[in-house]
Amino acid sequence: MDVISVIRTKRDRGELSPEQIDWVIDAYTRGEVADEQMSALAMAILLNGMNRTEIARWTAAMIASGERMNFDALSRPTADKHSTGGVGDKITLPLAPLVAACGAAVPQLSGRGLGHTGGTLDKLESIPGWRALLSNEEMLNVLDTTGAVICAAGDGLAPADKKLYALRDVTGTVEAIPLIASSIMSKKIAEGTGSLVLDVKVGTGAFMKTIEDARELASTMVALGTDSGVRTVALLTDMSTPLGLTAGNALEVRESVEVLAGGGPSDVVELTLALAREMLDAAGIKDADPAKALADGSAMDVWKRMIAAQGGDPDATLPVAREQHVVTASASGVLTRLDAYDVGIAAWRLGAGRARKEDPVQAGAGVELHAKPGETVTAGQPLMTLHTDTPEKFDYALQSLGSAYDIAPAGTEFTANPIVLDRIA
Amino acid sequence: MDVISVIRTKRDRGELSPEQIDWVIDAYTRGEVADEQMSALAMAILLNGMNRTEIARWTAAMIASGERMNFDALSRPTADKHSTGGVGDKITLPLAPLVAACGAAVPQLSGRGLGHTGGTLDKLESIPGWRALLSNEEMLNVLDTTGAVICAAGDGLAPADKKLYALRDVTGTVEAIPLIASSIMSKKIAEGTGSLVLDVKVGTGAFMKTIEDARELASTMVALGTDSGVRTVALLTDMSTPLGLTAGNALEVRESVEVLAGGGPSDVVELTLALAREMLDAAGIKDADPAKALADGSAMDVWKRMIAAQGGDPDATLPVAREQHVVTASASGVLTRLDAYDVGIAAWRLGAGRARKEDPVQAGAGVELHAKPGETVTAGQPLMTLHTDTPEKFDYALQSLGSAYDIAPAGTEFTANPIVLDRIA
Repeated sequence: MDVISVIRTKRDRGELSPEQIDWVIDAYTRGEVADEQMSALAMAILLNGMNRTEIARWTAAMIASGERMNFDALSRPTADKHSTGGVGDKITLPLAPLVAACGAAVPQLSGRGLGHTGGTLDKLESIPGWRALLSNEEMLNVLDTTGAVICAAGDGLAPADKKLYALRDVTGTVEAIPLIASSIMSKKIAEGTGSLVLDVKVGTGAFMKTIEDARELASTMVALGTDSGVRTVALLTDMSTPLGLTAGNALEVRESVEVLAGGGPSDVVELTLALAREMLDAAGIKDADPAKALADGSAMDVWKRMIAAQGGDPDATLPVAREQHVVTASASGVLTRLDAYDVGIAAWRLGAGRARKEDPVQAGAGVELHAKPGETVTAGQPLMTLHTDTPEKFDYALQSLGSAYDIAPAGTEFTANPIVLDRIA
Repeated sequence: MDVISVIRTKRDRGELSPEQIDWVIDAYTRGEVADEQMSALAMAILLNGMNRTEIARWTAAMIASGERMNFDALSRPTADKHSTGGVGDKITLPLAPLVAACGAAVPQLSGRGLGHTGGTLDKLESIPGWRALLSNEEMLNVLDTTGAVICAAGDGLAPADKKLYALRDVTGTVEAIPLIASSIMSKKIAEGTGSLVLDVKVGTGAFMKTIEDARELASTMVALGTDSGVRTVALLTDMSTPLGLTAGNALEVRESVEVLAGGGPSDVVELTLALAREMLDAAGIKDADPAKALADGSAMDVWKRMIAAQGGDPDATLPVAREQHVVTASASGVLTRLDAYDVGIAAWRLGAGRARKEDPVQAGAGVELHAKPGETVTAGQPLMTLHTDTPEKFDYALQSLGSAYDIAPAGTEFTANPIVLDRIA
């Protein structure tokens, strides 16, 4: 087996054989295939695609590159959820304890943010004392005692994916549906969950800009999960505007706690409940009522125990950024558009996200929204508040907000996108 | 400027701007753009192409990465020739002294072989004492005093191309017409020749397997040369069967000397004369008669002076391989096919070529043909003789000859391909 013949096969629109896929993933993990060879192959895959058989084998080979976890010893059925990433997407925070409160075990191996979409671990790390890094034993212990755990994925799961993901990030080969699907699913299958709900975002603030691309990614991942014995379902959800009223780390924790307390923005509540119902259904749990678990405080109880189990103080005051800048409405009328991508970039520039994976993030930085599309605004009223510890970044953040919103004359008809656009099982 | 946006532009079928091209070639040469990024870009170029404007700028940027030579001080017009490489393609050896004997100055900066097509320098190095490596001053001196020089291209010419070529070789991105054209032409334009004749090979033994691909490569290179002020013409020539009766280093030198002595195989003589006439025409030399210069020994005189000027002994006995193996005809009839690629692979396996650029080659190794397509053969007669210093390689070489030829019943009609298939100016 030699790498050039593997590259040529895909370059010339051929189908990679199981042997070629197994060999190239293993040889790349061992360093026998060089980065410059793998990136050429990744570009050929991006441009020429892989069929379902190839994607399944590619995923299996990445799983085989590392360890597999197992939750069979738990007394409850496991339900996991993965989001492809969006602006203001704090859903994991209220969702994991909510689903746990309804009877499932929720292992959430999460990542840090890169680029304009924040990372779940970055958000939780704004809680004083909270630790993302757990051993496998600690992780199982938190999961068993509280019903939910949100922590960093260990280095042992799919190391081939880790290496390939870092390479794709610097070679313009991130946006390949077969590689995105196999990257996500290799980690989720290796993690050992029994059921999985995918939140595939669509819109300006998401990786997938069109519903067609999102549908292709979702159906690819659902097939991969199902074929590996994981009950998998995907919701396609709107990411043309930020979720909720905050994009940032501590800002989003605060909003998540509001949802767990029975309040919070309606879109966040709606999506949290929709995903909770899918997770419970996939886990085979009937008759649970997630809306009641939010209202009666049982989800909040799990949250507090889960945060405390990882060293966090759930009642501590969250960090607040040192400086604020208010952006006001430029006209009176109906807010008809508030762009997720532009807001995400602004939050990132304010310090909520990182440009390189070794950069720190600011706990308090981000964007707070005072109006959402469909609402009536008056010229001069606060539209959003920017938060940062580094006020010299205000101008840079404001640049990305220059054409972030539209205000139409009062009385203009406005129909909001539904949150859930489609369901793929 | 950042490399990911350059990669994305080409990945998404956009046109690279002059600024993007200048920046990425310069940054790659300096090491700021990494190999894994350039290989992803090369794959995107291979699959999505470049237009004429992009190719011209890419070539100019590679020229700008190094020094440019200048032959203006010479008293004669310069004429250079480049072959895209074939099996048994020793044409440069008789051609350079022949064209010099007719009044042009012929600077032939050549390379070593990689893979199944031999390298001109490897061939000449089978002549005892001959040196490929000359300083720029030595090179100009040999050219000025003998009219022709064949030597290694200096490291100073188009270093970006050198680095990119080595990368393409290991990443499955060699077969991209825009990259092949700019690689060849950047070196030829930087070298400073006034006119250039391209021998673009077509057939199993060539890079370009189809006449359409060869025509596209040829017209791309002719446009690049012409736009840079180099009078450029291309011949498309047949490479479905080996040129002449030898493929190997000393074997090809011996055959070249036969041509210079007024003999040699008819196809080698025909192509040498066709290219000589094009070179003289492109150099503006009228009334020269290359056939006469072969017949009257004046080309041979230049050859001897040129070899001697680089330390070689033109009258020395050439190396002979230690072992021979004769392949006999399996049937009687008309030889209708003798595959250039298969013979090239056999010669390479016998030791005439190298697998890695640091490997040595055997001076005496190669394949000697006793019949060419169109000739009548008798079962059991010698069809070819294999030469090597490493007889343990005979079996490996014979494997590539298993389906290298066809013998049809006696009396079967056979029409040979013409040597020159097309001319592009």
